[in-house]
Amino acid sequence: MSPLSFEFIQGGGVSSPKGFTAAGVAAGLKRSGAPDLAIIHSEVPAVMAGCLTANKFAAAPVEACRKRLAAGGPGRTFVVNSGNANACTGERGRRDAERMAHLTAELLGVRPEEVFPCSTGRIGVPMPMDIIEKGVRMASEALVPDGGESAARAIMTTDTRPKRFAIKIPVGTGFVTIGGMAKGAGMIAPRLDQPPHATMLVFLTTDARCSVDFLRSALWTACDVSFNRVTIDGDTSTNDTALIMANGLAGNSELHAGSEGAEAFTLALKELCMRLAREIALDGEGATKLVHVIVRKAASDPDARLCAEAIANSLLCKTAWFGNDPNWGRVVAAAGRSGASFDPAKVSIHYDAHPVVLNGGDAGTPEPVLVEVLKQKEFNVIVDLACGSSSHEILTCDISYEYVKINADYHT
Amino acid sequence: MSPLSFEFIQGGGVSSPKGFTAAGVAAGLKRSGAPDLAIIHSEVPAVMAGCLTANKFAAAPVEACRKRLAAGGPGRTFVVNSGNANACTGERGRRDAERMAHLTAELLGVRPEEVFPCSTGRIGVPMPMDIIEKGVRMASEALVPDGGESAARAIMTTDTRPKRFAIKIPVGTGFVTIGGMAKGAGMIAPRLDQPPHATMLVFLTTDARCSVDFLRSALWTACDVSFNRVTIDGDTSTNDTALIMANGLAGNSELHAGSEGAEAFTLALKELCMRLAREIALDGEGATKLVHVIVRKAASDPDARLCAEAIANSLLCKTAWFGNDPNWGRVVAAAGRSGASFDPAKVSIHYDAHPVVLNGGDAGTPEPVLVEVLKQKEFNVIVDLACGSSSHEILTCDISYEYVKINADYHT
Repeated sequence: MSPLSFEFIQGGGVSSPKGFTAAGVAAGLKRSGAPDLAIIHSEVPAVMAGCLTANKFAAAPVEACRKRLAAGGPGRTFVVNSGNANACTGERGRRDAERMAHLTAELLGVRPEEVFPCSTGRIGVPMPMDIIEKGVRMASEALVPDGGESAARAIMTTDTRPKRFAIKIPVGTGFVTIGGMAKGAGMIAPRLDQPPHATMLVFLTTDARCSVDFLRSALWTACDVSFNRVTIDGDTSTNDTALIMANGLAGNSELHAGSEGAEAFTLALKELCMRLAREIALDGEGATKLVHVIVRKAASDPDARLCAEAIANSLLCKTAWFGNDPNWGRVVAAAGRSGASFDPAKVSIHYDAHPVVLNGGDAGTPEPVLVEVLKQKEFNVIVDLACGSSSHEILTCDISYEYVKINADYHT
Repeated sequence: MSPLSFEFIQGGGVSSPKGFTAAGVAAGLKRSGAPDLAIIHSEVPAVMAGCLTANKFAAAPVEACRKRLAAGGPGRTFVVNSGNANACTGERGRRDAERMAHLTAELLGVRPEEVFPCSTGRIGVPMPMDIIEKGVRMASEALVPDGGESAARAIMTTDTRPKRFAIKIPVGTGFVTIGGMAKGAGMIAPRLDQPPHATMLVFLTTDARCSVDFLRSALWTACDVSFNRVTIDGDTSTNDTALIMANGLAGNSELHAGSEGAEAFTLALKELCMRLAREIALDGEGATKLVHVIVRKAASDPDARLCAEAIANSLLCKTAWFGNDPNWGRVVAAAGRSGASFDPAKVSIHYDAHPVVLNGGDAGTPEPVLVEVLKQKEFNVIVDLACGSSSHEILTCDISYEYVKINADYHT
């Protein structure tokens, strides 16, 4: 059986794998009255892995998760609120994050160190613990086997839609399932210190039985080619978090490096994370189109990344994409300032299949042809540096009036 | 006499120093019919210095200037067009830049290597040499001693106003004068390889007599604390250029390191460049306010710069400033992802004199007070990293709807 024979589950999410329940409720953190607190729970202890933000101002819940991941023990529960990031909240913030975990643990009859607290929203505002407490009570009573959708809704901030998927992989004589959900539309340029950037939150669940080393390595691999390659605004958040729990209820023989099913699982996890990452870029604040910035034939991996990031984060490129303006001078200017080494006279650039720059100069493709490419909801900007064999791809979006409106007015 | 006793000349510009003439004409490069070609000319050979873009895709005229500066010979003339950058135009572009210099030289009776060609505008479009030729003829005939204003207008692209100053410095028993003009409103984040970033073009003239080494060093020092500390959009241009010519007609004893008047001259040049840099930031595309991002007590100079640049280029900070939103979480998030090392628990942030963050957490200043700070046309964001003695200041601006409009629609 090919390692690629997985399939997506229609309407799936974090509660799709065996033994997981989820819920999302409106506790009252958001002025709008929208859902703002979610719990995802495994009926048995699960193996844990996570990737957390590299931002120096890591939020209190991120530190709580970091501590639990370092201890290496099993986990049972994710408890997540939107509407408040619990970042830059000092000692009180640390107590609040632990309190949120302890309360959840108490209500669900598990140990506090098995509960992973996460937060997203405004930075620097103390957590309104009365509301959190109410929300945790409500959500812990609302846990249901098909709660993935409501949980995905409750973690949204400027997101316009929930982001969730589930995937089923044949392993041995049976199947294992991976479910996932994500949020993030702004402050998105994840750099999980073992990958991603943003306030991006990603929660993954699986019923696979696997070793903790295998799970960590699979998560890292998946994050590195997905969330770590999305940028909306170049702003890496204080709260970025990607967590996975594997409860083993699928009953497969344990997955570890090189075991049967290990490759299929890793590929499926990667695919699931790439789908979630794509949803994040598609739902970028005010975005009207998805742009794949692909740098090829760079002298080194860091050069390929530098060049792709400079283009993907260039305000001038992003506004040109919004305006359907094929002005490749902006792509060239961003590549030229990126720090990547190359010979400008050998560089070529394509928009999808159409050459725009050949040997560092105009390729002569008629402008109307290029305008049509840029009018699409999704297109590729491919930069060939012609000086090596490294490549890097970044998913990004354009910058519209709406982006400015959202961010000039945003106040959770 | 204090080295600070210089004074600005009302209405001054590049033609204020002795022996300089200037002109700006409408050759027809701009569809709008606005002036688009300028010449600045010294009646005698002058000592030259320059700082050019670090962008790998340096434009053909930048390479022509680099060659002339490397040769170290005297100069007489700047010939500058807007409406076309002559960048990414290959061998033809190099010929066109030289042709522009040769034609100017011929008309003014100087040697081609004494003429420094510069261009700004759209990248990747061949220069319409018939129009350039016409413009050079017109401008060379229009040279006048008070042509500084018209020259400053002719180099504008998305600038809304000309930027020019002149300053008079007592040296010995007499005076020397420095004049300057600049353009640049977008693609501004100069990194002159011996300082600045943007398409920023800066032309400086002086009647001071000075050694070439002294002039180079004074220009570098001035650029490093002025143009190299402005960012509008973080996009470093292919055409950034700052050039100075010193024709010696003031009759002072030659300035060199340590000589009488040398310090006064350097301080005045620095002041002039800082004024021009400030004008560039004030006139940033769509900008509604000027923001000084000041990082103090960083562990090292590179850390101070990294942190200041991350904040000044953060889309989330810039849109919050536009919206009068004191949301300091965005400043903290940018500092935290900048790569600068510090202890988050010790960081403090002020908006002007008002504390917003103390010891890494909210300082408790009422939001209406901070909103009033942000409503000003100019304010300071001061970040104290409390871990060293390095500091760095960057001048930047906010990002408005107008910025997106200008850049989604821009087509020279």
